[in-house]
Amino acid sequence: MRDVAVIGVGMTQFGELWEQSYRDLFVEAAVAAMRDAGVEKIDSMYVGCMSSGLFVGQEHVGSLLADYLGVAPIPALRVESACASGGAAIRQAYMEVASGMADVVLAGGVEKMTDVDGGMATYALATAADAEYEGFHGATFPGLYAMIAHAHMQKFKTTSEMLAHVAVKNHANGSLNPYAQFPAKITVEQVLGSTMVADPLHILDCSPVTDGASAVIIAPVELAQKLGKPAIRIIGTGMATDTIALHSRKDITRLNAVEVATKKALEMAKLKIEDINFAEVHDCFTIAELVVLEAMGVYKRGHAGPATVEGETARDGKFPVNPSGGLKSKGHPVGATGVAQIVEIVKQLRGEAEEGRQIKGVKRGLAQNMGGSGGSSVVTILEGE
Amino acid sequence: MRDVAVIGVGMTQFGELWEQSYRDLFVEAAVAAMRDAGVEKIDSMYVGCMSSGLFVGQEHVGSLLADYLGVAPIPALRVESACASGGAAIRQAYMEVASGMADVVLAGGVEKMTDVDGGMATYALATAADAEYEGFHGATFPGLYAMIAHAHMQKFKTTSEMLAHVAVKNHANGSLNPYAQFPAKITVEQVLGSTMVADPLHILDCSPVTDGASAVIIAPVELAQKLGKPAIRIIGTGMATDTIALHSRKDITRLNAVEVATKKALEMAKLKIEDINFAEVHDCFTIAELVVLEAMGVYKRGHAGPATVEGETARDGKFPVNPSGGLKSKGHPVGATGVAQIVEIVKQLRGEAEEGRQIKGVKRGLAQNMGGSGGSSVVTILEGE
Repeated sequence: MRDVAVIGVGMTQFGELWEQSYRDLFVEAAVAAMRDAGVEKIDSMYVGCMSSGLFVGQEHVGSLLADYLGVAPIPALRVESACASGGAAIRQAYMEVASGMADVVLAGGVEKMTDVDGGMATYALATAADAEYEGFHGATFPGLYAMIAHAHMQKFKTTSEMLAHVAVKNHANGSLNPYAQFPAKITVEQVLGSTMVADPLHILDCSPVTDGASAVIIAPVELAQKLGKPAIRIIGTGMATDTIALHSRKDITRLNAVEVATKKALEMAKLKIEDINFAEVHDCFTIAELVVLEAMGVYKRGHAGPATVEGETARDGKFPVNPSGGLKSKGHPVGATGVAQIVEIVKQLRGEAEEGRQIKGVKRGLAQNMGGSGGSSVVTILEGE
Repeated sequence: MRDVAVIGVGMTQFGELWEQSYRDLFVEAAVAAMRDAGVEKIDSMYVGCMSSGLFVGQEHVGSLLADYLGVAPIPALRVESACASGGAAIRQAYMEVASGMADVVLAGGVEKMTDVDGGMATYALATAADAEYEGFHGATFPGLYAMIAHAHMQKFKTTSEMLAHVAVKNHANGSLNPYAQFPAKITVEQVLGSTMVADPLHILDCSPVTDGASAVIIAPVELAQKLGKPAIRIIGTGMATDTIALHSRKDITRLNAVEVATKKALEMAKLKIEDINFAEVHDCFTIAELVVLEAMGVYKRGHAGPATVEGETARDGKFPVNPSGGLKSKGHPVGATGVAQIVEIVKQLRGEAEEGRQIKGVKRGLAQNMGGSGGSSVVTILEGE
């Protein structure tokens, strides 16, 4: 397999974007990534999208978006693994370039979530859980993650304050990100005083419903060199699954898909987690960031909460997590999220993060993207020049 | 890239399967394919599925089906390109094995379409067209293909009788296929006398709404040899897109995605269309079989209809088409269709087609799977031992 790099990145503003349609959003991000890479032609593309059928009444979006991007007749395929769809698009694009099947591949993600009412958005998101069991019994995603939070609190004495610190840290980062949906700085008191959504998760423990798109261009390392672009190499990729339903797991505070995907990506990169400088992780809820960091082996189980309170995961901490603002502050247009994580890591490794957000001296970053309540996860490791 | 073969195949009965759920269907087909291959373990899987969100209120089906198949934590990904989703699953599995990322990969497809009312099924299928233009103006798939049929009739003097002969031939084949949804033999008079759905397409010109699943096991050729299985090699794959909307095309009687995908697959296999012995093609409507055969270069434009009447595409003709019965008689569970085409080709190339259906002396078969009204197409070429 060939060495592969990300040579261009682009994304739209994340937010409630009433004036832009599903196809507008994708094309804007894709054109930005192509311009950034300096390529006018792509050989193939993947689109991460969770539920265009339920959100905008449109399937067949690979073909639709290739058409609107003006790149037909190239192959264009939608991939779906719920909220890990974007990470999966990155992985398939990596595979296509590494195998030699294609040279310049676009991996993008898009979701337009605000054109439906709130009940429909909650229903669409709940289809990432087990519809016949969890869904039929009325479980929604805040409810499922609230159960994980309660179990974690009971087992490890995790507190609501610790969860609040995750949100505060991610909003502090997001406040410096011009693409973030909710760039406001917040305090622990504000999180704890905000409306309860599903005990113990307040509304400020939850990532928002968002419109947005993101895209990257993936190519062989030699092409990056030929184009004179910094080659941010993909040195590891891992994908794994777990039971789709929480009730089938022995311990709901453990995310086995994240453990396995991280292990595989690290093995492929011939690295240990200690060799990674920073990460973008899937903080769909504040509790998720903690259980993910523990599953990845960054912290022992039960230790991620106290470490967050100590500031270890802040931008200037030992292991910065979600310098982009994460799903929490930047926003979570489901299919776009996994690709936007790669956009952030590439910017950081190029030293091109916006003013104040750049982490100094980083060489390797990891993106962890999650589907549902951990039913799937994709981990990607990138290395700068 | 390594040489790759299909080493196992399986499918469920196609039909209106009230007693089997979405997950039951997939697991039945997947287990059949694994047994046929003689493998107890797979490294990765792809699921072709068009619209589980609209048909069964479930996304994240890669994870769901890996869980129910008992193979988690392996990577499992849903791919979607409308009715070409199954073909896309085959293509991604091929890429993963050819690249060396994995050894034993399952490519499956499933759709459960009969648990909704007819209006919802028509709506869900229409999301394969351009929802904002064709969909909003009320165009359904029978309507879109009826426009193609009218244009073809005007341009090439194609007749309703010619279309009827496609249906009659495919039902004659399907009558010998124990997995077919509608195995009844029919006559030209019956087709022409059946209810008009969208002029000039009668109900017997249309493929049905179907529940079903199919699966194949893809592995390196050496593994097939080690397991003592016939290695049916994948020697060519091509995928292409076109405008998603019919109204954006210069000539709606031409399927450019099929032309390009066929050309790419043949180039990869270093073959000409004349080197192929038979094909399974996407006869979602009778007119589709004719325009596909013309786009593939089997016949000059306007010649596929008369050739069908002459019996050239019959099981004992010069170029047998849809020996399985095709979508028309076997049924069309959208996501499963592209994989079921491969199941048929493998059976034929192994000499294992059911009594009466086996075509003699075939060495190479081609599967053509189509998304929407030709917005995407996947072509796969297989070679027997």
